[in-house]
Amino acid sequence: MIRYLTAGESHGPQLTGITEGVPAGLPITEDEIALHLARRQKGYGRGGRMAFEKDRATFLSGVRFGETTGAPIAMSIPNRAHEKDDSNWPKVLNKEGDGEDVEAITVPRPGHADLTGVQKYRYDDIRPAIERSSARETAMRVACCSIARQFLKHFGIEIGGHVTRVGSVGYEDSWEDVRKRVGPMLKDGAESVFEEADKSPVRCLDEELTQEMRDLIIKRRKEGSSLGGHWEVIVTGLPAGLGSFVHWDRKLDGKIAQAIMGTQAMKGVEIGQGFESGRRHGQVVHDEIIYEDDDFKRRTNRMGGIEGGISTGMPLIVRGVMKPIPTMLTPIDTVDFKSKEKKDTRYERSDVCALPRAIVVVESVIATVLANAFLEKFGGDSIEEIEERYSN
Amino acid sequence: MIRYLTAGESHGPQLTGITEGVPAGLPITEDEIALHLARRQKGYGRGGRMAFEKDRATFLSGVRFGETTGAPIAMSIPNRAHEKDDSNWPKVLNKEGDGEDVEAITVPRPGHADLTGVQKYRYDDIRPAIERSSARETAMRVACCSIARQFLKHFGIEIGGHVTRVGSVGYEDSWEDVRKRVGPMLKDGAESVFEEADKSPVRCLDEELTQEMRDLIIKRRKEGSSLGGHWEVIVTGLPAGLGSFVHWDRKLDGKIAQAIMGTQAMKGVEIGQGFESGRRHGQVVHDEIIYEDDDFKRRTNRMGGIEGGISTGMPLIVRGVMKPIPTMLTPIDTVDFKSKEKKDTRYERSDVCALPRAIVVVESVIATVLANAFLEKFGGDSIEEIEERYSN
Amino acid sequence: MIRYLTAGESHGPQLTGITEGVPAGLPITEDEIALHLARRQKGYGRGGRMAFEKDRATFLSGVRFGETTGAPIAMSIPNRAHEKDDSNWPKVLNKEGDGEDVEAITVPRPGHADLTGVQKYRYDDIRPAIERSSARETAMRVACCSIARQFLKHFGIEIGGHVTRVGSVGYEDSWEDVRKRVGPMLKDGAESVFEEADKSPVRCLDEELTQEMRDLIIKRRKEGSSLGGHWEVIVTGLPAGLGSFVHWDRKLDGKIAQAIMGTQAMKGVEIGQGFESGRRHGQVVHDEIIYEDDDFKRRTNRMGGIEGGISTGMPLIVRGVMKPIPTMLTPIDTVDFKSKEKKDTRYERSDVCALPRAIVVVESVIATVLANAFLEKFGGDSIEEIEERYSN
Amino acid sequence: MIRYLTAGESHGPQLTGITEGVPAGLPITEDEIALHLARRQKGYGRGGRMAFEKDRATFLSGVRFGETTGAPIAMSIPNRAHEKDDSNWPKVLNKEGDGEDVEAITVPRPGHADLTGVQKYRYDDIRPAIERSSARETAMRVACCSIARQFLKHFGIEIGGHVTRVGSVGYEDSWEDVRKRVGPMLKDGAESVFEEADKSPVRCLDEELTQEMRDLIIKRRKEGSSLGGHWEVIVTGLPAGLGSFVHWDRKLDGKIAQAIMGTQAMKGVEIGQGFESGRRHGQVVHDEIIYEDDDFKRRTNRMGGIEGGISTGMPLIVRGVMKPIPTMLTPIDTVDFKSKEKKDTRYERSDVCALPRAIVVVESVIATVLANAFLEKFGGDSIEEIEERYSN
Repeated sequence: MIRYLTAGESHGPQLTGITEGVPAGLPITEDEIALHLARRQKGYGRGGRMAFEKDRATFLSGVRFGETTGAPIAMSIPNRAHEKDDSNWPKVLNKEGDGEDVEAITVPRPGHADLTGVQKYRYDDIRPAIERSSARETAMRVACCSIARQFLKHFGIEIGGHVTRVGSVGYEDSWEDVRKRVGPMLKDGAESVFEEADKSPVRCLDEELTQEMRDLIIKRRKEGSSLGGHWEVIVTGLPAGLGSFVHWDRKLDGKIAQAIMGTQAMKGVEIGQGFESGRRHGQVVHDEIIYEDDDFKRRTNRMGGIEGGISTGMPLIVRGVMKPIPTMLTPIDTVDFKSKEKKDTRYERSDVCALPRAIVVVESVIATVLANAFLEKFGGDSIEEIEERYSN
Repeated sequence: MIRYLTAGESHGPQLTGITEGVPAGLPITEDEIALHLARRQKGYGRGGRMAFEKDRATFLSGVRFGETTGAPIAMSIPNRAHEKDDSNWPKVLNKEGDGEDVEAITVPRPGHADLTGVQKYRYDDIRPAIERSSARETAMRVACCSIARQFLKHFGIEIGGHVTRVGSVGYEDSWEDVRKRVGPMLKDGAESVFEEADKSPVRCLDEELTQEMRDLIIKRRKEGSSLGGHWEVIVTGLPAGLGSFVHWDRKLDGKIAQAIMGTQAMKGVEIGQGFESGRRHGQVVHDEIIYEDDDFKRRTNRMGGIEGGISTGMPLIVRGVMKPIPTMLTPIDTVDFKSKEKKDTRYERSDVCALPRAIVVVESVIATVLANAFLEKFGGDSIEEIEERYSN
Repeated sequence: MIRYLTAGESHGPQLTGITEGVPAGLPITEDEIALHLARRQKGYGRGGRMAFEKDRATFLSGVRFGETTGAPIAMSIPNRAHEKDDSNWPKVLNKEGDGEDVEAITVPRPGHADLTGVQKYRYDDIRPAIERSSARETAMRVACCSIARQFLKHFGIEIGGHVTRVGSVGYEDSWEDVRKRVGPMLKDGAESVFEEADKSPVRCLDEELTQEMRDLIIKRRKEGSSLGGHWEVIVTGLPAGLGSFVHWDRKLDGKIAQAIMGTQAMKGVEIGQGFESGRRHGQVVHDEIIYEDDDFKRRTNRMGGIEGGISTGMPLIVRGVMKPIPTMLTPIDTVDFKSKEKKDTRYERSDVCALPRAIVVVESVIATVLANAFLEKFGGDSIEEIEERYSN
Repeated sequence: MIRYLTAGESHGPQLTGITEGVPAGLPITEDEIALHLARRQKGYGRGGRMAFEKDRATFLSGVRFGETTGAPIAMSIPNRAHEKDDSNWPKVLNKEGDGEDVEAITVPRPGHADLTGVQKYRYDDIRPAIERSSARETAMRVACCSIARQFLKHFGIEIGGHVTRVGSVGYEDSWEDVRKRVGPMLKDGAESVFEEADKSPVRCLDEELTQEMRDLIIKRRKEGSSLGGHWEVIVTGLPAGLGSFVHWDRKLDGKIAQAIMGTQAMKGVEIGQGFESGRRHGQVVHDEIIYEDDDFKRRTNRMGGIEGGISTGMPLIVRGVMKPIPTMLTPIDTVDFKSKEKKDTRYERSDVCALPRAIVVVESVIATVLANAFLEKFGGDSIEEIEERYSN
């Protein structure tokens, strides 16, 4: 089983991650991880910070001669902001000293972990909550999960995501329109989806919608507001039989849902037609089974590749929603947690819409869930051993 | 930490469950569990089986003189169908023998775990997949989780759910209309929600919608189709500070999402405004913080009681979607998994719309997630010990 | 991964267990489990209870036509003492009522979980601690683990244990003498070890020691004292490569150690030469590697089949110690936990030496650890699938 | 719950660790960790490497102004050997390249993870097994666990270990003699034990034995052999009530046993009198309960502070055995795993007896187990919150 821990504050010296449980003999390079880290940093609607960060994860262990050894893989990503900013991060986040000359932040921003962080950990300064709950952490999460992603790709399993809605702008019929757009692309594997989406500054596959989304982002930026939206991730090449119905915590969709909702700013997740399936009746929801090319297939894929908590062998379709970024130029009401006085939210430099970049994060976290389900079925300590079984 | 395992086939002799990790000294009776088991069996759109099942979970261990002892609590629920049916369940599900005189089922029903079960476990008869993936299992899940629910209630935490949509019939503005309807009820605690909803045969709080939902169910039944829909569960009395942002797998919303998506037929889950928040812009999504009655509150609760993966102290609002029941009178295409020949789906007696009853299941599974988050913060091996801390 | 929960009080109506995660298609019968349950009930030095208990675990789910289905396997074992005793167990362990007419036990027995149970769970009656910490629970543990044991046996992995010491009576040179005795038996598989040991009333392979152990048990019974001793379990047929050195919690010996020390009355565990290896120097501890019969072997097996946390393919040798039974006819000092007054321990009917029967428990708990390590390496959801890989 | 992952090869650029789940507000400094890292590097019988390594763990996250924030704590320890050696570690452990100019090691050393590593991971070079299974990893394990140790110390719980045997030299009566020696020291807390033991080059509390152990080490070094031995760790200040008897995997002794046996070279573990208790009869094994100074105590402590899987409030006594170091100057037989030819073991620079330093490792790993048991009982997200409960 692959497991990973990430560590690091948004403006601390570095992010650190350890991924443990990867089979030995998987070809892997820092460049492949850098690709997804770079994708995570691109996208329209970004704030200033991204301009000078250019993330690269460095392997510190577990990789030799371009292959995993089975040992834990440690990685670090330096936070260039820590040093380059004029600001005094080394002082503000000093691991030593008493912090007496650092001003405490006491005005929580709604929608962040600011107030809840204080309530949980009894902070007298919101700073630690800001630092650790920041989306900056997802850079290391992408790095850790990119190893699992590489593992899946080795066995022909590809992952690709795209944006289906930014605020009021999105596909008219979110399910059917998107199926028409994406369906033909999947015969080349789901990576073709992200490759195509990456050409759009908002990672939307539709050119017209891309333009409208950009316009909306510009408009909301001017107003001092922010935006979220809807996304979709597709996985191709997944074999049938991963996950199980025999106990609730073995269901593949349950594990995917936790991984997604465990990602910053995600407020909902659905598989296949998801919420839309509640509006329809059974005859137009379930997927007829056919036998074709020596395999069982579904005439449609409204179930999104999972039935009874188990992968069907059809493309996996996971969709979700990211809420608008809580940091906004135009303030809303809040309260100083010490004085209890009413305050305006203070502004920290931020993006207007983080969704295009968050696509890479959700693609990534799904990868580790799937790699574990795959390992559970095929077992094995080395790529060679797994290949023997998988080709059988 | 509370954990539980359920066992049992849909038409086997009994369902069995073990709940482990409950603190000692919690007052608990079979009657309280029977209440939720009965609720799970009621609701419009049900098929024939429910008529003669009347579930009651029997404590087999871990309870003495009306209180938990801290030891594992085993429970059994007999499957009356096993005996009473004219059918030959004891023969079909015989634990011994070679099964030669039992006809194998080889035609998988789309939307069930039938084909995926065969692909995963290499069954040559779909029967075991039908039996274990059946919603019958949720009776024991409700029983197991009702203990956690009782624990929460002891500390003033109440849970209540209701139906917001059946197929094409639902609240026009799913967020605002429902808030107006439910908001005033919460001052009495969330149990008032389920008590009110239980008066409706479809567990909908709105009388007019109730009538329309019934009509739709009648219509779809006549057509031989089926229905799913949308639901909402609300939890009141939850303290701020449960869950955490420090690591992805500590986020409270992630754990809730897994529990929901680990429930039969659920295809989506959202917290608070969920998918709707992706359509809006930040100014009308985030909840302003106020200080009132010696406590921090939110002017609105669009985040649904969770910020940064941590409970805010506002009511928790979880919403989700259940797909239409895959078993339908009017057949759709499928394939015999042995002969590979095209077949019509065969009909087994089934409900048309299981959503009203599934409400009780999702209320329940959330309870165990919350009880564990509560225990993590307050620790403790006995109710007495936890009370000392919680009243502080 | 196989996991299991057991439930039930020593004098409650039944023991209940659920084993989850067993691959589908494993041939299994209640009789095979009954064999080990019967073995657990036999042995010299037992008290009265065993005479009228004859345990048999009944499958309640997860088994059809003599094979596992992949679904959770529930089992029950009735406690005949609950009904047959003249005593009033149904009243003493009533799940309802207020227990006012049941006298509380307030004098803890040293060596039991009596006082610690009260301190942990704030009981005002020791009874629940007595009931759940009792070795009676191991009947269900044996039943649950016998399924894993059957799984291992299907792949040629056999387990057998024997007693090497009872109090002051044991092999003179615990390592060398036992190796000489056991070594030749292993070519027939480790089950030959338990089969041979089972012929001795104290499960000792040596006839002379058997007689001395019996004499010692008689002597200590007369004195009102009790005895423990040392045991050894051997596993043959285990492939090399289970467990791992890459992270501490993946080491096979660590998992075995937890399972053993998680068993009632066990106070120590060692692998291979264990504590003896600390008395020697390296030249006479490590096992030279040879290549023979197309396989890597060790000239000796002092490491007991594990190097670097991984199975070597040599027989696994686990040894441990069981403390004397704390319940003794001749009282020792204790204190009433309510009045704080000094008291004599009270006597409950008990064995003098439980070690011969505990052998079966330690054999069993090791089985589940090994089955999980095996599943991790070979993966698979069905016996058929695993067979394909394992024969390769 | 505190969890941690370590990463890093013995001669790689650095060791990396992440400790997650530590409550907020714990005062902690790198110096305190450095103390135990330095202790781990001291001791008689060490080889050359220790001379130039001087470990210091650097906090990379999770600590601000001298206190934990509740966020994951990442640490790194550079491997000075990586750079300073004349050897070419950067080339031998290159994460990139094809390794064609690096000679593969194909002769496994008995007693190491060399052959088992190859069998598990299908290496064609033993190097990765050597690197990751090396005791060098324990430096980071000590660092990670020292945080838990600091947590315990904050609540008055102290840990101290010492050596009781090196090869043939040890206390005559391992239980009674050691009790006499250690008993009086415990009134000052268990840290007095390690402080006193640290004065001996072999960490033995007895001066005469210290001299004999040194002599033996010198003798075995000359012979080209190696030594292991026995150790004891004592914990004082532990409250009663940690762990549980209600399920096997909640027993405190089971968790301790896994942590110990999960440590390199440990072949056995026992609690209290351990194996000795199997040689005695009940009257002289169990600890009479008394009431003294407003508390329940035991007249003796042969059970080593745990009864029924729960801490008794008496000092915890854990003992174990470390096998002799497998790397020895005088070769023993082995086989080239590629050619299958018989070979002598090759020598790498190594210690003769690592036991004195391993004491620090076993002290450390016990700390995390106990901290988690403590957190389970007292809950809490911040030191402040836990203090309120613990002082109650």
